[in-house]
Amino acid sequence: MTRYGRDEPYEVFEIEDFPLACGRTLRPARIAYRTYGELNAARDNAIVYPTWYSGRHWDNEWLIGEGMALDPDRWFVIVPNMLGNGLSSSPSNAPSPDGGPSFPPIRVADNVEAQYRLVTERFGISTLPLVLGWSMGAGQTYQWAVSHPETVQRMLPFCGSPRTAPHNRVFLDSLRAALTASVGFDGGRYRTPPEAGLRAFARIYAGWGFSQAFYWDEVWREMGHTSLEDFAVGFWEAFFLDDRDPNNLLTMLDTWWHGDVGATPGFTSTEQALASIRATAIVMPAEKDLYFPPEDEAWAVSHMRSGTELRVIPGVWGHFAGGGANPVDTAFVDAAVAELLARPSGI
Amino acid sequence: MTRYGRDEPYEVFEIEDFPLACGRTLRPARIAYRTYGELNAARDNAIVYPTWYSGRHWDNEWLIGEGMALDPDRWFVIVPNMLGNGLSSSPSNAPSPDGGPSFPPIRVADNVEAQYRLVTERFGISTLPLVLGWSMGAGQTYQWAVSHPETVQRMLPFCGSPRTAPHNRVFLDSLRAALTASVGFDGGRYRTPPEAGLRAFARIYAGWGFSQAFYWDEVWREMGHTSLEDFAVGFWEAFFLDDRDPNNLLTMLDTWWHGDVGATPGFTSTEQALASIRATAIVMPAEKDLYFPPEDEAWAVSHMRSGTELRVIPGVWGHFAGGGANPVDTAFVDAAVAELLARPSGI
Repeated sequence: MTRYGRDEPYEVFEIEDFPLACGRTLRPARIAYRTYGELNAARDNAIVYPTWYSGRHWDNEWLIGEGMALDPDRWFVIVPNMLGNGLSSSPSNAPSPDGGPSFPPIRVADNVEAQYRLVTERFGISTLPLVLGWSMGAGQTYQWAVSHPETVQRMLPFCGSPRTAPHNRVFLDSLRAALTASVGFDGGRYRTPPEAGLRAFARIYAGWGFSQAFYWDEVWREMGHTSLEDFAVGFWEAFFLDDRDPNNLLTMLDTWWHGDVGATPGFTSTEQALASIRATAIVMPAEKDLYFPPEDEAWAVSHMRSGTELRVIPGVWGHFAGGGANPVDTAFVDAAVAELLARPSGI
Repeated sequence: MTRYGRDEPYEVFEIEDFPLACGRTLRPARIAYRTYGELNAARDNAIVYPTWYSGRHWDNEWLIGEGMALDPDRWFVIVPNMLGNGLSSSPSNAPSPDGGPSFPPIRVADNVEAQYRLVTERFGISTLPLVLGWSMGAGQTYQWAVSHPETVQRMLPFCGSPRTAPHNRVFLDSLRAALTASVGFDGGRYRTPPEAGLRAFARIYAGWGFSQAFYWDEVWREMGHTSLEDFAVGFWEAFFLDDRDPNNLLTMLDTWWHGDVGATPGFTSTEQALASIRATAIVMPAEKDLYFPPEDEAWAVSHMRSGTELRVIPGVWGHFAGGGANPVDTAFVDAAVAELLARPSGI
């Protein structure tokens, strides 16, 4: 019986010297992760499901469970925490000289490389039936398929992209500008996190995370909120005040900003990297996602191998259609995972 | 020959005691305005064209000119500056006890009432062939048609709404949160404006003012910018660092946030107020406007008198389709003004 929740134990994989794309080295890099289910004897039932911007492994658990596509009775689901999320190596926990605002820049490919070493060195896994993820987890999914085409049989990136689009960067720049301009941020050398800045950060995010129609229709009522302001404070401000360290947020933001599979060594463009992907794929943007709009993923799919499916999550939930926030979208994502797992491997 | 530009002289209309919707009184209220063309003897060729969020009268001049629909040879175009914009009564220029953060809250109806007194008392005008405006200017246009249905023959609100929608409020709340949280804002009692806060404000606005497709297609190149960052700094940051006082911005933001013609005395709902409008109207949202999306204006039109036309400005410019930022959209708006002026009066 799998137990879930933030209070359950998790593991840490330590890489003694981990060189980063930027040229610096983490000594060590620590990748916090949790697994669900059992690795079988053939070591061929493992699925990698990376976390998203500021998410922790337990925030992915809504898509894992008995009777669901990611059933721990059948699959061995590995959820690695992103570098910078506060559980893996991050500004908030790195020893000197890498702590706080001195933490080195992390690229998506750094995360995937660390995860690859976890998967191969700790578990001896050489093939993955599926890599999937939401948002920045989708970005890592694309990077997995580009960096390790021989390993990834299937991929399901949802509400995320192979390259961070310019309007997405504009959004990220606004978050960074508000947080770094706030009282008490102090160049990242705060003693206690700047609360007003985090609340502003949350307020900006609120405008992007859900669609205009979501707000017009007051769909936050389905999440148990009683007014728009209650949703802004009770969901959004609470979200970013929940132990989310500002320097950690800025590290992950920088990772996101620079996301581009085209920067993978050996490739000269995003298009070329996309064309190299061998995995069987369902690419799943959400209809009203404001920062990963469906047309961006239609573009990505147009550069991927034939047979790659674009499947848009319908409805008004915007980016959070892929966040496990409502049962209809959860069922839609779960059904796609089940369908994809039943399709032939791309490798 | 009409001369244009921010260095041209303008007039001020002073109202000795001006009671506001909030219960406070401006002593005096000063409405800065400029006129273009000559009022005819019958006093029946005046058009009111209010300013938008943080805009000044000269920022409306792109739609006025010889050979255009708003031709000063034919029409007497009055551009009144909104309360709070730094030219009309504002936190930045109000005498004690109303200066700075102590400036009273201003409602859209306060602006329209002051403009009505300007039009009737200074000019003796009792009928307006047209009221039009962009963005918050559209909000004032709706309010004019609701507050003074006997005066407004035609209306052309573009990229704006009769009631500020919830997602629009989420956007505004994020602007306010970032500015008020910034170093040096000091509760609005700054000696010099908090620059980093204004830059953050600009960065947030950048993500909303133009569409995702505008950024994907790098359409800022048509505005003379050389990179995304050059656009962010050279257009957006320069925009809000151009003498736009933070307390002024917050006053106008509050006006915007509370916009709702349904709050007009005598009405119990937005729908009822919309149904009372008699003016012949073309309602003109922009296809990819992120804070005034076309579906919101389709809703408004569904509550207006039959014959009210919804005409969507096509293209990728988003909210700025109505800002005079490119010749194609300018021609589209100008053509609609010409068509509307040729239609029969609604009163």
